[in-house]
Amino acid sequence: MRILVANVNTTQSMTDAIAAQARRAALPGTEIIGVTPRFGAESCEGNFESYLAAVAVMDAVTRYEGEFDAVIQAGYGEHGREGLQELLDVPVVDITEAAAATAMYLGHKYSVVTTLDRAVPLIEDRLKLAGLDARCASVRASGMAVLELEEDPERAIEAIVAEAEWAVREDKAEVIVLGCGGMAELEGRIRERCGVPVVDGVAAAIAAAESLVRLGLTTSKVRTFARPRPKAVLGWPIPVHAPAQAPGVGIPG
Amino acid sequence: MRILVANVNTTQSMTDAIAAQARRAALPGTEIIGVTPRFGAESCEGNFESYLAAVAVMDAVTRYEGEFDAVIQAGYGEHGREGLQELLDVPVVDITEAAAATAMYLGHKYSVVTTLDRAVPLIEDRLKLAGLDARCASVRASGMAVLELEEDPERAIEAIVAEAEWAVREDKAEVIVLGCGGMAELEGRIRERCGVPVVDGVAAAIAAAESLVRLGLTTSKVRTFARPRPKAVLGWPIPVHAPAQAPGVGIPG
Amino acid sequence: MRILVANVNTTQSMTDAIAAQARRAALPGTEIIGVTPRFGAESCEGNFESYLAAVAVMDAVTRYEGEFDAVIQAGYGEHGREGLQELLDVPVVDITEAAAATAMYLGHKYSVVTTLDRAVPLIEDRLKLAGLDARCASVRASGMAVLELEEDPERAIEAIVAEAEWAVREDKAEVIVLGCGGMAELEGRIRERCGVPVVDGVAAAIAAAESLVRLGLTTSKVRTFARPRPKAVLGWPIPVHAPAQAPGVGIPG
Amino acid sequence: MRILVANVNTTQSMTDAIAAQARRAALPGTEIIGVTPRFGAESCEGNFESYLAAVAVMDAVTRYEGEFDAVIQAGYGEHGREGLQELLDVPVVDITEAAAATAMYLGHKYSVVTTLDRAVPLIEDRLKLAGLDARCASVRASGMAVLELEEDPERAIEAIVAEAEWAVREDKAEVIVLGCGGMAELEGRIRERCGVPVVDGVAAAIAAAESLVRLGLTTSKVRTFARPRPKAVLGWPIPVHAPAQAPGVGIPG
Amino acid sequence: MRILVANVNTTQSMTDAIAAQARRAALPGTEIIGVTPRFGAESCEGNFESYLAAVAVMDAVTRYEGEFDAVIQAGYGEHGREGLQELLDVPVVDITEAAAATAMYLGHKYSVVTTLDRAVPLIEDRLKLAGLDARCASVRASGMAVLELEEDPERAIEAIVAEAEWAVREDKAEVIVLGCGGMAELEGRIRERCGVPVVDGVAAAIAAAESLVRLGLTTSKVRTFARPRPKAVLGWPIPVHAPAQAPGVGIPG
Amino acid sequence: MRILVANVNTTQSMTDAIAAQARRAALPGTEIIGVTPRFGAESCEGNFESYLAAVAVMDAVTRYEGEFDAVIQAGYGEHGREGLQELLDVPVVDITEAAAATAMYLGHKYSVVTTLDRAVPLIEDRLKLAGLDARCASVRASGMAVLELEEDPERAIEAIVAEAEWAVREDKAEVIVLGCGGMAELEGRIRERCGVPVVDGVAAAIAAAESLVRLGLTTSKVRTFARPRPKAVLGWPIPVHAPAQAPGVGIPG
Repeated sequence: MRILVANVNTTQSMTDAIAAQARRAALPGTEIIGVTPRFGAESCEGNFESYLAAVAVMDAVTRYEGEFDAVIQAGYGEHGREGLQELLDVPVVDITEAAAATAMYLGHKYSVVTTLDRAVPLIEDRLKLAGLDARCASVRASGMAVLELEEDPERAIEAIVAEAEWAVREDKAEVIVLGCGGMAELEGRIRERCGVPVVDGVAAAIAAAESLVRLGLTTSKVRTFARPRPKAVLGWPIPVHAPAQAPGVGIPG
Repeated sequence: MRILVANVNTTQSMTDAIAAQARRAALPGTEIIGVTPRFGAESCEGNFESYLAAVAVMDAVTRYEGEFDAVIQAGYGEHGREGLQELLDVPVVDITEAAAATAMYLGHKYSVVTTLDRAVPLIEDRLKLAGLDARCASVRASGMAVLELEEDPERAIEAIVAEAEWAVREDKAEVIVLGCGGMAELEGRIRERCGVPVVDGVAAAIAAAESLVRLGLTTSKVRTFARPRPKAVLGWPIPVHAPAQAPGVGIPG
Repeated sequence: MRILVANVNTTQSMTDAIAAQARRAALPGTEIIGVTPRFGAESCEGNFESYLAAVAVMDAVTRYEGEFDAVIQAGYGEHGREGLQELLDVPVVDITEAAAATAMYLGHKYSVVTTLDRAVPLIEDRLKLAGLDARCASVRASGMAVLELEEDPERAIEAIVAEAEWAVREDKAEVIVLGCGGMAELEGRIRERCGVPVVDGVAAAIAAAESLVRLGLTTSKVRTFARPRPKAVLGWPIPVHAPAQAPGVGIPG
Repeated sequence: MRILVANVNTTQSMTDAIAAQARRAALPGTEIIGVTPRFGAESCEGNFESYLAAVAVMDAVTRYEGEFDAVIQAGYGEHGREGLQELLDVPVVDITEAAAATAMYLGHKYSVVTTLDRAVPLIEDRLKLAGLDARCASVRASGMAVLELEEDPERAIEAIVAEAEWAVREDKAEVIVLGCGGMAELEGRIRERCGVPVVDGVAAAIAAAESLVRLGLTTSKVRTFARPRPKAVLGWPIPVHAPAQAPGVGIPG
Repeated sequence: MRILVANVNTTQSMTDAIAAQARRAALPGTEIIGVTPRFGAESCEGNFESYLAAVAVMDAVTRYEGEFDAVIQAGYGEHGREGLQELLDVPVVDITEAAAATAMYLGHKYSVVTTLDRAVPLIEDRLKLAGLDARCASVRASGMAVLELEEDPERAIEAIVAEAEWAVREDKAEVIVLGCGGMAELEGRIRERCGVPVVDGVAAAIAAAESLVRLGLTTSKVRTFARPRPKAVLGWPIPVHAPAQAPGVGIPG
Repeated sequence: MRILVANVNTTQSMTDAIAAQARRAALPGTEIIGVTPRFGAESCEGNFESYLAAVAVMDAVTRYEGEFDAVIQAGYGEHGREGLQELLDVPVVDITEAAAATAMYLGHKYSVVTTLDRAVPLIEDRLKLAGLDARCASVRASGMAVLELEEDPERAIEAIVAEAEWAVREDKAEVIVLGCGGMAELEGRIRERCGVPVVDGVAAAIAAAESLVRLGLTTSKVRTFARPRPKAVLGWPIPVHAPAQAPGVGIPG
């Protein structure tokens, strides 16, 4: 089976890291295709960037020319999963939800440890919409930006483990979820440090997607995720040949 | 004061109708600027189209070259309001939320009457995220597509009034919310027919935005809606010179 | 348009301050009439006083002999709004609800800072009934009694700002709501001190009431707020010529 | 032990019926004192009347000159219980809550059958505030006004039993709660007709109050129900020498 | 009337203490029969032990040869109440629920103080299922194991009072519930130490059961608690003649 | 990997059918061991039987002498999963939860179609405890008893499909969950008949358990599911040599 693993940002090295983690988790016969959006932010840390990513991932996945059996949206707490579900029949698995659903098999409550404080409400909202928040003890920020996870993994591990410990002690979490696709590479080392199960969303999503495919299950098409109605859609697929923007350029207030 | 009223789809006549309704509701000194996205669907009836709209509205609003005091997102149940809030300091009011908040002043429970059945879950989700669902008795579909509202207003009125009556009788609604920006023109005639208050989201949003501006209130910038962090954003603002797609073309499965 | 602004307690100077704040917030053509109950407590800080106020406000409003277009109930977290809605067709706006609905346009979560600890559960209950509690991060007490707000505004400002800062830092509030009608006068100075939007309920309620009137919206009369059925009501309107009680007199245990 | 059973309306025959039911339920040594308010509506069927009752019951109870061990507020879905709890140390039991708490011992879900449709939202709100709504399957209206229960008991029984049967069949209720103090007299006959347990609030409240007294439990005074602070309370206790109003007189719009 | 009070563990001294507390709370004419399971753990502090207790209590109660009018399940936060309700027509009262329902008459919020940290989630789950959690401020662990309550009552009282004080101060509890059947003996002394009402579940359950019996109320048999369907049940009632296990023996991983 | 699939009842043919379904769903290298309890009911359709099953499954699993990597509890809506989690380190997957979590990847809302009406509240309760109920549109009963599923599969399929269609049309379900382990054999034929995805819990649980094992995830041992404390447990493992009871014998009232 072939699974597309869509990074939500335009940083190729993060796509590679996510795909590597996906391959570690995948069954022997599963082919993992990492997909990087053609446009959008180098990292997603807020709603503007996340909405761009929602469209950029839809663009990237619909442009992919081969066959595939499932899609992973590999951004934690990002917008867009519902759009992919409309466009595709094959299963779409969001790492936010796969990680939560997986954690719920392992303990009474789970906590998410994510990157920046500003990402916390996005994650809380996604879990609420997904109906997976009832056993979420807390969403905690490590204070590490997405790109810092790659740049300074040692500091990242310390910061994440520290928050995980607080979550277990204060919030009564029994399982820790890594709240960023970019934490996939750190999973092994964080797991060694925590006395509780640690769930990485990319790995959880691969296993969930493989399971759905093996069980012959596809997205329901009766209502919410029915195909888009035939209509004029201006400027889609979106043509992109603009150069990368200088940081922050072009966002007026 | 100047308020941008952003249509979520690319149908200019709908922008005009929404702007006209906005002008009817506005204070004498308020200037209403209708904004039409440069790309996206001719009507929004699902998540794919709605996510496109989220980005297209951000694109359109950030490209607007003048000063403005507030923005209305004039799509009912659509994605994107949080992105605008990050990009702007001025208040952003979503008609979904303004209509609900307004209805809650008028009766114990309200119901939304929208277009197609497939739009119902999107609206339910937006109300849940907004924390305005506790007194929502139901979201009902009239079965009219967005563009049919303009094409066949008589049938639309009958269909909407019929659902409104069911909502009052069966779901115990005491107020009806019109669940589509495109219903703004029909408001007067629907109100005549229903024995309960009828709230149009565009009018409600204009009044709410004017109120926020007059009270000197702006979007909080401390956390969720802080400005995007400076970073490379590839392909933004999105360049659009593709011709309109033929209906449904280019959306693979 | 004319709006009655009903103080919930019998302290005339507080009525004056509330009316002054209402006038600052009102549109040029709006006439503000401050209304003081003929009976009840000099300040409302609990259920006994609040229930008295509910009736005293209904008494005062129904005794008012002129025409009016809307009524503000200017007590934060008090009983009684539903009774006024039954008696009147014109919109009734409770400052508790107007402030919450307004705050929800501005940030992901809001906190209320009120007077005494004993008022907290009343406010929580009112927000829950109003269905506006889902995005309330916390209700915090400043420890200042209602009348102390007038007597010692400097200390009040310090105490309120301190709690507001805790709410932002610990409870993740992004907007602060002033949880007492008597804080209206302090709003400007508190707003200067906090880095987040500060919402005063009186101003928010005036704007909401004006909006409802301008939009031609009135209280739904189909069920919960239908006029009282014709029946014998003994001792209404309540005749009051008793002298003010000495403090606490006449409340047996 | 002596228990005050406070009717919420001014109809003496209803006080008598409630007190009779209370005596049937009470332990041998319990003295039941029926209390009728000096002012207020002949029946409570809405918020205006219910708020008046809240104050009228506080007035009546605080005027009672003897000792007593507990108070029952014998109106279903009415305001005011929290006020009594502030004024008194002895337990205060609301029949709305006692009936719900009792029903929850007997089945997985319960339904309330009340009088008029307009009373339904009041009851729903009181159950929500009391935190006793999670297992409430429905609140249904029999269409009988409060005073009609006495006037035409045969028709009332038929109407109540019909709704009870719907509640069991459609709403999956397993226990029926009689949602009006005035239904106490009909309890025996309704119980014969229904195949499920039927709970009368007056009887349930008497048993609950006796239990609290026997267990030496009194209202907590640390926060919400602390005694009112010493302060000037104008016009309390409320002097009433107005003649009964003609039906509906004096309630302007 | 005769009430069976079923201990959930096999420690006879605890049955005796619970029965003694039940007798202190009972009406003069009530006969209390303490019942000890024939199998199961010497104390219940987790799900394995609690599920065993669920069956052991059903076994013990169905083996009891005399008549009885109600059953108390005297374990706090334990499984099994629903099974007894199916097997019996007479009321079954769980001390977890009786204590919560009783506490809710006395204050705005209550907290439970229990034994070990690991018992907290069980209690939270039971309260959630019972629909009695909305006004639960917190469930706190004293750190005392069940059997330590008997062994070192002085230390237990200190530990419980300390947590109760935290619950009042930090969690805003206004009533304390003793979260273990084995705390019944300590109730009097804990109550002296706390400034808020303290509810013991055994006493509360006795009063509730007596009330149900006196009101002629029995378990609803229409759906959830209908008698088990006639069918082959292998090995029931369960014969037990195995020797007591050495601690912890025989539980593989 | 080896997975124990525990039937909750004592009907060997049902164990065989469940194990066969598990094998159809399992990965090539997975060994499925069907486990039948030594005691308990021939089918589980209520709390008495379900609590017996909870203990009987714990007994059966702890008696199993080989190594195993995960356990499936193959009863829909049954008690006991938490007990197994305490006793074991390997993952324990309940088919109720696995089916719900799987369905949530496929549509906006799901409905469960189960056997008898009396099983509905048990399933609702388990989903609530699991925190997987927010997107459950309904739990519907087909009216087929558990053993009738085997005896009359044609009628069962008709009854289940009919309820599934109601769930899609009326309750707005987009995915159907088969709410009984005994429906596993019918899955293929039901899926053909419904226009929406159909999830069988046994298959879903196998895939979930395999995923957990492959990801190296085990049950958290820090709090709720920590090993039972060492203590005397009388009569465990439970010796069963009583003859099978005649149907219904020995259950007094």
